[in-house]
Amino acid sequence: MTLPHGAVETPVFMPVGTVASVKAVPQHLLEELNAQIILSNTYHLYLRPGHELIRRMGGLHRFMSWHRPVLTDSGGFQVFSLNELRKVTEEGVEFRSHLDGGLHFFSPEHSMDVQIGLGSDIVMAFDECTEYPAEYTRARKSLDLTLRWAERSKRHFDAHKHEVPWGAEDISPGPAPCDLRPSLFGIVQGGMYQDLRREAAERLVEMDFPGYAIGGLSVGEPRELTREIIAETLPLLPKDKPRYVMGVGYPDEIVEYAEMGVDMMDCVLPTRAARHGLLFTSEGRLNIKNRRFAEDQNPPDPECQCMVCGRYSRAYLRHLMASQEPLAAVLNTLHNLAFYLDTMRRLRERLETTSPSK
Amino acid sequence: MTLPHGAVETPVFMPVGTVASVKAVPQHLLEELNAQIILSNTYHLYLRPGHELIRRMGGLHRFMSWHRPVLTDSGGFQVFSLNELRKVTEEGVEFRSHLDGGLHFFSPEHSMDVQIGLGSDIVMAFDECTEYPAEYTRARKSLDLTLRWAERSKRHFDAHKHEVPWGAEDISPGPAPCDLRPSLFGIVQGGMYQDLRREAAERLVEMDFPGYAIGGLSVGEPRELTREIIAETLPLLPKDKPRYVMGVGYPDEIVEYAEMGVDMMDCVLPTRAARHGLLFTSEGRLNIKNRRFAEDQNPPDPECQCMVCGRYSRAYLRHLMASQEPLAAVLNTLHNLAFYLDTMRRLRERLETTSPSK
Repeated sequence: MTLPHGAVETPVFMPVGTVASVKAVPQHLLEELNAQIILSNTYHLYLRPGHELIRRMGGLHRFMSWHRPVLTDSGGFQVFSLNELRKVTEEGVEFRSHLDGGLHFFSPEHSMDVQIGLGSDIVMAFDECTEYPAEYTRARKSLDLTLRWAERSKRHFDAHKHEVPWGAEDISPGPAPCDLRPSLFGIVQGGMYQDLRREAAERLVEMDFPGYAIGGLSVGEPRELTREIIAETLPLLPKDKPRYVMGVGYPDEIVEYAEMGVDMMDCVLPTRAARHGLLFTSEGRLNIKNRRFAEDQNPPDPECQCMVCGRYSRAYLRHLMASQEPLAAVLNTLHNLAFYLDTMRRLRERLETTSPSK
Repeated sequence: MTLPHGAVETPVFMPVGTVASVKAVPQHLLEELNAQIILSNTYHLYLRPGHELIRRMGGLHRFMSWHRPVLTDSGGFQVFSLNELRKVTEEGVEFRSHLDGGLHFFSPEHSMDVQIGLGSDIVMAFDECTEYPAEYTRARKSLDLTLRWAERSKRHFDAHKHEVPWGAEDISPGPAPCDLRPSLFGIVQGGMYQDLRREAAERLVEMDFPGYAIGGLSVGEPRELTREIIAETLPLLPKDKPRYVMGVGYPDEIVEYAEMGVDMMDCVLPTRAARHGLLFTSEGRLNIKNRRFAEDQNPPDPECQCMVCGRYSRAYLRHLMASQEPLAAVLNTLHNLAFYLDTMRRLRERLETTSPSK
């Protein structure tokens, strides 16, 4: 997958940098971890520091000094999480800021403007994330809205995609001139109803996006259902375009879905869990705060080659958590991201070997 | 100055790593900053995780994976900060933990045992830090106690200094076998009374320590008084041994004192101020939270060569503070330490040139 700010090998896991920072990790260490692309949140950046400010700073890449690709979500998921603070109409969503209660309005067109202003490499269509559980008629209505919004997103995006704040000098020396522009991905919704998912996929494929996401998962449904929806939806999306499952998951999930053919995934889990002392390792999950690690001189994960496992003991990481030291978040996050990114790297190597034609 | 864990060029500024971590900075970045020696706090480490645990882990260097020299304070200063929670007798100090209110007792002998157990390169004598202001008779009495405790510290240290948790394999390949042992520094007290400072210096020099500190400064007195006490005390201490002023200061202060002949200084200022958004630069102090930096694309300090100034803008650092991102503490601390350490490096080069015989 070649994007304006560089190539991305798939399947790929995208660390989440909500407000233009992957929490607690300096950008040069993200590069050392071989993070290829990060996700940033449109809703948060729109509120603070504001997409117009970021546009004036030359876009997200320059603003945060991250020169590899960035994907932005559409703001839809966050806005829909503000249950009591929002009002949905055909036109868009009115909502109140979680920061100061101020009134704002997002439409498909506005979401495109914000994401283009941020200068994303991959822009996501503005959708309604259907809640779980949802009745069939509710999911049906929600999907129809999402599909109308997808059309509006695409129309507006195509008309304005040249307005990104970066130019030829910022981007990777690439092949075709069309690569200078961001890409807009469509999002398959439809709740947990397979016929709605099928309809969504077909309608979006007709609209011809350069990539497709499966959204509305990891919203509280049992994991078997997540798996089932992915398994049934994936074959309906073109194999030669990136297929992205949003907001998953645990290490074994991302492996499972990647083996099923998913190309892209993102999740706050490795970074958020790290800040709470939960480490993902080849031996399973470790709650590093546990007393039993107080004198454990082993690295967090004896199989891991990361900069944390190569240097620090469980005893030390446990001490940092117990003492509420800021370094705990830094080191735990570095390890968890290394574990996720390395898991995907090994998977890519394995898939490469087993299907050399791919 | 050659210590068991390596050589230190003086004058040197020592970053403070209170509980075995320089807050928010991974050890490999401290190395990249060319930090030569760090200070750790005996009181805090004694309470958590405990010096016996750290001894079992092979000492502080192994525990925190920092292989350069460490100086520990005696615990005295922290214990004396616990005004309402302590009781001083000839024998030592009874105090309550700030963590859980538990009762503890520090004597000169116990402070030596703790610091030896931690495996410091430089151990500080257990002293009473005289409060400011203090009446003459109070300062006199306090100094007498400090001097008796210095003798007891030295006697106990000499009898037990071989009990450090590290061995020949941990230390820098050095010249004499005596270098395998930590050093004990005496601390000059005496409040703001020059005759008491003189007496303290003379008595400690008689006891023959390998290095001397001037303590009891930066306790609330005006800066001219700090300067005066340093200026008058310094000539009373042997020039061929390290002279250390504890707990200072602002960038211009450390330059001033180093030019007066001070070899070692430590202070929480660069790290603590960083976490509150105060940056030290060649253009003075910047409160990076200030609105006027919101769109400032300049590096924090245009003259600075550090990894933060080479990559990030004031606008980005301001955004990180405004958004309370954990990366703010990391990047601000990295810059402030770089500024302090670089200030001292330039000063060493200048002193080297102007007095090549030194």
